[in-house]
Amino acid sequence: MDLIRRIEAGQGEFLLFALTPPRLATDPAQVREIADVTAARLRPLGLDGLILYDIADEAERNPAERPFPFMPTLDPADYLADHLSTWPTPVIVYRAVGKYTPDELPAWLTAQDPARVMTVLVGAASSTAATRTSLADAQALRLEANAALTLGGVAIPERHSRREDEHLRLLAKQDAGCRFFVTQVVYDLNAAKNFVSDYHYECQSRGVSPVPLVFTFSVCGSMKTLAFLRWLGVDVPRWIENDLRHATDPLEASYHQALTTATELIEFCRTLGVPFGINVESVSIRRVEIEASVRLAGAIRGQLRGS
Amino acid sequence: MDLIRRIEAGQGEFLLFALTPPRLATDPAQVREIADVTAARLRPLGLDGLILYDIADEAERNPAERPFPFMPTLDPADYLADHLSTWPTPVIVYRAVGKYTPDELPAWLTAQDPARVMTVLVGAASSTAATRTSLADAQALRLEANAALTLGGVAIPERHSRREDEHLRLLAKQDAGCRFFVTQVVYDLNAAKNFVSDYHYECQSRGVSPVPLVFTFSVCGSMKTLAFLRWLGVDVPRWIENDLRHATDPLEASYHQALTTATELIEFCRTLGVPFGINVESVSIRRVEIEASVRLAGAIRGQLRGS
Repeated sequence: MDLIRRIEAGQGEFLLFALTPPRLATDPAQVREIADVTAARLRPLGLDGLILYDIADEAERNPAERPFPFMPTLDPADYLADHLSTWPTPVIVYRAVGKYTPDELPAWLTAQDPARVMTVLVGAASSTAATRTSLADAQALRLEANAALTLGGVAIPERHSRREDEHLRLLAKQDAGCRFFVTQVVYDLNAAKNFVSDYHYECQSRGVSPVPLVFTFSVCGSMKTLAFLRWLGVDVPRWIENDLRHATDPLEASYHQALTTATELIEFCRTLGVPFGINVESVSIRRVEIEASVRLAGAIRGQLRGS
Repeated sequence: MDLIRRIEAGQGEFLLFALTPPRLATDPAQVREIADVTAARLRPLGLDGLILYDIADEAERNPAERPFPFMPTLDPADYLADHLSTWPTPVIVYRAVGKYTPDELPAWLTAQDPARVMTVLVGAASSTAATRTSLADAQALRLEANAALTLGGVAIPERHSRREDEHLRLLAKQDAGCRFFVTQVVYDLNAAKNFVSDYHYECQSRGVSPVPLVFTFSVCGSMKTLAFLRWLGVDVPRWIENDLRHATDPLEASYHQALTTATELIEFCRTLGVPFGINVESVSIRRVEIEASVRLAGAIRGQLRGS
């Protein structure tokens, strides 16, 4: 069964891979080449789907200096339409809704083929950010423009650690039409387990079917990348930071940590009976990091049922 | 090699079992019977050592009501001398030093055989507690009275979560003579890993050999016991609480959680090269809980090297 039907049926055990589109300043011929190389690299993985991120500056997120400068990227919808039209699986296109006017979103939503595209609508990174369209408005626009287009949302286990209500937010988003959720990168297994557990028991007590939770993993090749993850709001446990700081090969250490964490989370979700997917994210432009991400996806593929 | 030599040599992979002495009000004949039954139950485990706790009220610890009433118990030193003298392994006797006058401690310390007994000196549970002897004074008394008596201390990963300095406290206690550390019950694996990791890298950077860290596990058969653990300052993750609350057999669920956590922590310590021991604590008077603790110790025994 293809990814969209599986998600609509509430079934998990699928594998996604997430990319950021090339930088806006990239030469068009080079964009073509990047897309071709990427597709060739990912095809052998037998992915169930691809995610294209929509990058926002998010400078409002955090008063601290951004460890990496913000580089605008191509619009993920354009990148898909122009360069990945022959990609064989469904594609999940993120929309950072605050970037778009209420006129821009419906046009794109209407044009999408619900048998091939899904979307994750992402609200502003902070409550003080200037937003052109709110998440609630964008959700309503999706319903009007293209109700058949499968909708996902973001889930943030770290927010659950602080407020203990992320499972309730998810259930509210389910009411607004979300059929799956994708987390930000998971480093804190305990936070992820707390979040899954609370979601599971809340669904159970309400008699609601859980939708697939997609957990994102990545490799982290340097302390600077780790600093950036923290800037983005990811909780990285001290022992993981220590291991990376002292490893002779931080990228390899990170690969093993991510694989171990994914394995434990898969086991945990299966035990509870919560449908889940795994998303491996590759946002680096360093070749060794991209290759390690592909290797991570391959290793996780082998652990998923029906793979 | 026996436990005391192993600890003095900084070697881990040993198994301990911790008991509270019977209640002070117990009929002497019944105390004899309890000791005999306990020894018979524990002998087949092939333990490397036994721990006898010294129970204090600790009402100052927490303004919230104690979930179980405080019941004074026999003095662990008396219990050992009077009823467990034929127990075959070394015994670690806890001393809640705040309970004793500076005259009482040296007499006991002097009388101990360093080839058979070790002691863990425990300071007050809160800085406002009325104490007859401070931890620092007790450590000094040990050095004067019986310097050959192997000394241990307590380690609290939860304190590390809040203050991030537990590894430094341990190193200061090592300077004061401690040759091993015993944690309170571990439910939060992440906190334990953070603590071990920081301790490991701090030892490395100072060129100090790590001493064995003994991690304590127990089974928890009811939500009331869980509430008591929290009252004692143990961090119990939400997902563990949820699992226990919804389990048809909480004791069995708790057994599996403890075994899984112990297994992961063993693997983590081995990877870092930190010497470790495992302590299974049985403080319940319910027979099913005692039996589950013994079963847990047996299962962990099989995972330790040289067992």
